[in-house]
Amino acid sequence: MRGRFISLEGGEGVGKSTQARLLVAALAERGIDALLTREPGGSSGAEAIRGLLLSGAAERWTIEAEALLFAAARADHVARTIRPALDAGRWVVCDRFLDSSRAYQGIGGALSDADILTLHRIGSASLLPDRTLLLTLPLDESSARADLRDGDEPDRIGGRDGAFHRAVGEAFARFATTEPARFRQVDAAGSPEAVNARLMAALADLLP
Amino acid sequence: MRGRFISLEGGEGVGKSTQARLLVAALAERGIDALLTREPGGSSGAEAIRGLLLSGAAERWTIEAEALLFAAARADHVARTIRPALDAGRWVVCDRFLDSSRAYQGIGGALSDADILTLHRIGSASLLPDRTLLLTLPLDESSARADLRDGDEPDRIGGRDGAFHRAVGEAFARFATTEPARFRQVDAAGSPEAVNARLMAALADLLP
Repeated sequence: MRGRFISLEGGEGVGKSTQARLLVAALAERGIDALLTREPGGSSGAEAIRGLLLSGAAERWTIEAEALLFAAARADHVARTIRPALDAGRWVVCDRFLDSSRAYQGIGGALSDADILTLHRIGSASLLPDRTLLLTLPLDESSARADLRDGDEPDRIGGRDGAFHRAVGEAFARFATTEPARFRQVDAAGSPEAVNARLMAALADLLP
Repeated sequence: MRGRFISLEGGEGVGKSTQARLLVAALAERGIDALLTREPGGSSGAEAIRGLLLSGAAERWTIEAEALLFAAARADHVARTIRPALDAGRWVVCDRFLDSSRAYQGIGGALSDADILTLHRIGSASLLPDRTLLLTLPLDESSARADLRDGDEPDRIGGRDGAFHRAVGEAFARFATTEPARFRQVDAAGSPEAVNARLMAALADLLP
């Protein structure tokens, strides 16, 4: 039986990476073997593209080149990592996927949502998650969390301004409203364990 | 006045790079300042993507990821190099452009021509050359020339087999037939100087 494909989405600092790890552990406790992966990256080709995307000056890439690079990385990730795992019956938990491209590259109408979905059709045969868990947090709280993160400099995209990150959050909320069957919005406030419990509840209908 | 955009196309070993250089020199003799560039590459971002595309094992990228990477490199090349030069009134002579993607990634229907053109619309606002010079040579002769080239190992794409390169040549010929206003087919046999004279003749209607 084909595995389930779960993506975690949300802005910077809402706890996606931590929650992806906790989710894989919670699924394992239920006897479900899940692969943990992330974007951009998750396969050797996609990791090489990730290096191009996240390093260098903020204006290194035009929005069009950036969208094509994300789609290329995703095509490699889907072909080499995600589809083989799903076909082998494993679940896949992915920290960011298509909706991040829609939210980040679509800001201010830079690229239309239709064009981003077209790139996904051409690159990845329009593979969609069975469930997308959207972690939400008031913007000032997620910014504070992102700032606290082990002293790293923000990358090319995380380093953009508050108005940009507000628009990203609004875009995610809009996608969730438009596709209620695929999306669940989950409050990311509170302890990691409390948030993990909410995520598992948001997957209840998919669990065996 | 906006400059003219000229692309050179054709299979491996037909002499595109040599002819691109000679063409820029011949244009200079007419008082036309032309920028010489090539694909994949031609801008710093595109050259970084070129490294990913041409190195590694033949099966490193799926055809979909490869097409997206070429389109990303082209988007960067157009935005950073080609459009600024044309807008400044310079001519641009480009060794390979969009039609190479159509020929190479379209082989065997791997990717539809419509999809490759869609990637070009999203990435580069569908910029087309004012003239595309298609250099043609019987396949055995171009293979022999490619083999003679200073002992380099063929790259990821040049190293493919004869049937592949035959299909590439047929695809180019089909594009030329479909778009006669943009394309000129030029016999690449004979001395470099003789071929250069043919190319200049094929640009006669564009010269001031």
